[in-house]
Amino acid sequence: MRKKKKTADNNPINGVKIIPLGGLGLIGMNMTAFEYEDTIVVVDCGMAFPDVDMPGIDCVIPDDTYLKDNIEKVKGFVITHAHEDHIGALPYILRDVNVPVYATKLTAGIINYKLEEHGLLKSTKLKIIKHGQSVNLGCFRIEFIKTTHSIQDCAAFAIFTPVGTIIHTGDFKVDYTPVFGDPIDLQRFAELGKKGVLALLADSTNATKPGYTMSESTVGKTFDTIFSENTKSRIIVATFASNVDRVQQIINSAKKYKRKVVIEGRSMVNVINCAAELGYISIPKGMQIDIAEIRNYPPEKVVLITTGSQGESAAALSRIAASVHKKVSIMPGDVVILSSSPIPGNEKSVSKVINELSALGAKVIYQDTHVSGHASQEDIKLIYALTKPKFAVPVHGEYRHLCGHAQIAEAMGVDKNNTFILKCGDVLEMNAERAAITGSVQTGGIFVDGLGVGDVGNVVLRDRQVLSENGLIAVVITLDHITNEVIAGPEIVTRGFVYVKESEDLMDEAYDVVYGTLSNIAGRHITDRAKMRNMIKDDLSDYVWKKTKRNPMILPVIMEGED
Amino acid sequence: MRKKKKTADNNPINGVKIIPLGGLGLIGMNMTAFEYEDTIVVVDCGMAFPDVDMPGIDCVIPDDTYLKDNIEKVKGFVITHAHEDHIGALPYILRDVNVPVYATKLTAGIINYKLEEHGLLKSTKLKIIKHGQSVNLGCFRIEFIKTTHSIQDCAAFAIFTPVGTIIHTGDFKVDYTPVFGDPIDLQRFAELGKKGVLALLADSTNATKPGYTMSESTVGKTFDTIFSENTKSRIIVATFASNVDRVQQIINSAKKYKRKVVIEGRSMVNVINCAAELGYISIPKGMQIDIAEIRNYPPEKVVLITTGSQGESAAALSRIAASVHKKVSIMPGDVVILSSSPIPGNEKSVSKVINELSALGAKVIYQDTHVSGHASQEDIKLIYALTKPKFAVPVHGEYRHLCGHAQIAEAMGVDKNNTFILKCGDVLEMNAERAAITGSVQTGGIFVDGLGVGDVGNVVLRDRQVLSENGLIAVVITLDHITNEVIAGPEIVTRGFVYVKESEDLMDEAYDVVYGTLSNIAGRHITDRAKMRNMIKDDLSDYVWKKTKRNPMILPVIMEGED
Repeated sequence: MRKKKKTADNNPINGVKIIPLGGLGLIGMNMTAFEYEDTIVVVDCGMAFPDVDMPGIDCVIPDDTYLKDNIEKVKGFVITHAHEDHIGALPYILRDVNVPVYATKLTAGIINYKLEEHGLLKSTKLKIIKHGQSVNLGCFRIEFIKTTHSIQDCAAFAIFTPVGTIIHTGDFKVDYTPVFGDPIDLQRFAELGKKGVLALLADSTNATKPGYTMSESTVGKTFDTIFSENTKSRIIVATFASNVDRVQQIINSAKKYKRKVVIEGRSMVNVINCAAELGYISIPKGMQIDIAEIRNYPPEKVVLITTGSQGESAAALSRIAASVHKKVSIMPGDVVILSSSPIPGNEKSVSKVINELSALGAKVIYQDTHVSGHASQEDIKLIYALTKPKFAVPVHGEYRHLCGHAQIAEAMGVDKNNTFILKCGDVLEMNAERAAITGSVQTGGIFVDGLGVGDVGNVVLRDRQVLSENGLIAVVITLDHITNEVIAGPEIVTRGFVYVKESEDLMDEAYDVVYGTLSNIAGRHITDRAKMRNMIKDDLSDYVWKKTKRNPMILPVIMEGED
Repeated sequence: MRKKKKTADNNPINGVKIIPLGGLGLIGMNMTAFEYEDTIVVVDCGMAFPDVDMPGIDCVIPDDTYLKDNIEKVKGFVITHAHEDHIGALPYILRDVNVPVYATKLTAGIINYKLEEHGLLKSTKLKIIKHGQSVNLGCFRIEFIKTTHSIQDCAAFAIFTPVGTIIHTGDFKVDYTPVFGDPIDLQRFAELGKKGVLALLADSTNATKPGYTMSESTVGKTFDTIFSENTKSRIIVATFASNVDRVQQIINSAKKYKRKVVIEGRSMVNVINCAAELGYISIPKGMQIDIAEIRNYPPEKVVLITTGSQGESAAALSRIAASVHKKVSIMPGDVVILSSSPIPGNEKSVSKVINELSALGAKVIYQDTHVSGHASQEDIKLIYALTKPKFAVPVHGEYRHLCGHAQIAEAMGVDKNNTFILKCGDVLEMNAERAAITGSVQTGGIFVDGLGVGDVGNVVLRDRQVLSENGLIAVVITLDHITNEVIAGPEIVTRGFVYVKESEDLMDEAYDVVYGTLSNIAGRHITDRAKMRNMIKDDLSDYVWKKTKRNPMILPVIMEGED
């Protein structure tokens, strides 16, 4: 692979532009614009969960400036599947860019829930497309192709453009025996490949994993084995809220072993209700019971399916492990299955939950109870073998995964110079002959904090970081607004700094430092408030650093007396 | 395994007490007291690195109250090896409990560095013990037995007590072909086992990993292969600062391929200097060059060995990856080897470093370049087969690992009721016949923040947490101390809350809310300051929550005017 320089204007490409507006370098917020003349179509509209250096942030959404600036061109969003990193930003971005959204039935069903929560149901045009069908948007025709992943009803897109066919796989795995519905439509990929594919944008998440990804249905056998070995125990299974097929397989095992099923955890209840309404999951009549009824059955006749397999502190499993769940307490002998792998960054919280459950006497099973939803190296090769694209654009994954994917593309015969590892905002332009990065557009992450979208930025986050590491010392003084004499204070208040009661000497001396600064200010007849604040800040922070080797935020407040 | 209840006093055990004062449930701070009548000997004195919910904390050390309260009994510390989680608390705890410290040569050398840094060199009695030698401490004799791990000169202890022999393995692996020195002394374990071992305290870190742990020397072959495949590139290897044998093997490969070696990163330089002085590493003359000389050699003739394999933000590799290292910049084509596995919790920062290096054009090798320093399931079984203890006490590891270890002990014939999974502070008492948890002592983690030890506690941390998530709103008012009329303010100052400039309406309305509260206070003739503060806090936080769904810390300061 090679990063191309911008081409000179004397040889314009005049082709289709592919512009990642999120998702590359800004992991999670998948949103890619495809543009040709007066047409822009956007694939996916995802959000990202905040990183550890974003305290207090609820989620991050992509900057939609480019779409707003070109609103007259934007014909619609086409959505690959219903995971948050592909649909989570819709409720925010649709407020700015209110265009139709196209998705398969289950994906649309889950988007609907989301729109309803945000009061956007009526204002949004959401259209259901079947696999195999196409939708015409401006000068593009977009065909929905059946794929498989860790949620149902996923689609890849064949985007038929004036310069050639571009395939975007979305997140996918090659599953020949999915739990529900058809396998991935490899024939269609092959047919398109035979006719000629200009570019392939394919999932890189597992591009550094050798071999093949196993079918989702293999997990069902594991559940059967665990159920058969633990007929005397209550079984609790935690998994991803959105993995409907996983839940179906737990229900299948429960049926075999004559257990009632309880589904617990708001997000899982929502997805499962949606899937049940639309016919994507089948729960035998009378089998599902309410959590309140759990006491009416012996433990060995119950399976609890729940959220929290990532150790999320607010989720049901974490509350059960911490003994603060209102309706479920661990009994010694309970079998708890974590049917998931920790997402990078969640390892410690997952460990914590496992340790807590073990300490309560539960048998915790957390190995070999999960398969990935993403194609491994050999699966990715298969897609290249079928589609034989001229250009390769690795998507979905960290930079190292995109690099791994580029190596696969090369191994599969794509010219090294025809593989493009893009950054967010890069404009990759291509026609039937050639492709190059020809520009860049504004992108970035917008922080959502409570009801605020974009009102928390890096300065605020930096303040939060400082506050979190060393706390705060506020110094408050009231001056006579005419004579500049101190009429109240100084008052020193700290939060998150030290135990004040055990640090009386430190606080006494801090007062002495401030008195010293004030008499210095008076002696030098300084009246400028900003200068006063800086002197107080400097003197006190020097003192505190010398005494404690800490850097709390120092907040001087100077008020004017009005009497 | 079973948690035993305290035994009734009518049948006292009168045996040896084993008291974990850290390290169980408080991962990292390994420190265990062995007590009999007037003798206490302490194995290890480690610290823990802070968790994500401990912002601003530098490290955590074990509460030494029990040792201070029994200072006349404490005969000394015996140290298994020189990792921070086994020696890091010495400089703090020796101030309270100044008793002799016994360790092997390299361990003592590294402890010396630490004591010097803390100005404790002169006041501490540090004695070097050879493997096979014993030290008599009170009524115990403690023999140092050679073991292998990811640092050299490790020891297990045979503690000969009046009621029987107790073996403490420390951290260990079974390495038949270590890079330096003798393999683990399995014969001695067997000999002791043959004579009768009362209890075995063994490493549980890898107790859930099936199979055997490979020899450290296998990594050398991997290095050779990588060096032979990349003769045209500069090579940078990051590994643990303390893994002297790993550094030796990199040096061996460098020698074969005629490269100069640079060692970069303060902690690694310290350990390697210490190891070189004491003869634990051999660097051919003229081979090691200073980082400043790197420009005098072609890239393919240099290996840089550095810290930062865990993605620690201050370490050399992270600074190189972020392009802020003063002396090393990545050149496209550089080969970077991460010779380590991410410690749980570090996965994301390791990924970040890999992504940054890849984006700079480096080829990053991070798979199959590391072996663990801890015994896997079959290795642990071997130690049980040799020692055949009556009682098993799993140590080192999270709760789930201790549970995994208990299963191994059972499989190896230890009676289920004779295996004890202890909590910090549990007093396990045993004689030749039986053992039971007979009490508990005070334990806990003491936070070290800058120069402060123990002056930051949970209240302060909770404040830091709140501040980090939503920031702070300070409301300052000065009242006439006689009439209680407002003579200055209210002034509202925020930090880490919102961009004030973009939230003018919010701030204006916040002032209105406070004015409202003040007129309510005046109307109801309230003069109690605490009550006033609470009213301001409640009204403002209600308003802010309604408007923003955020919960900043609200800090009302009421001052008294003096004129």
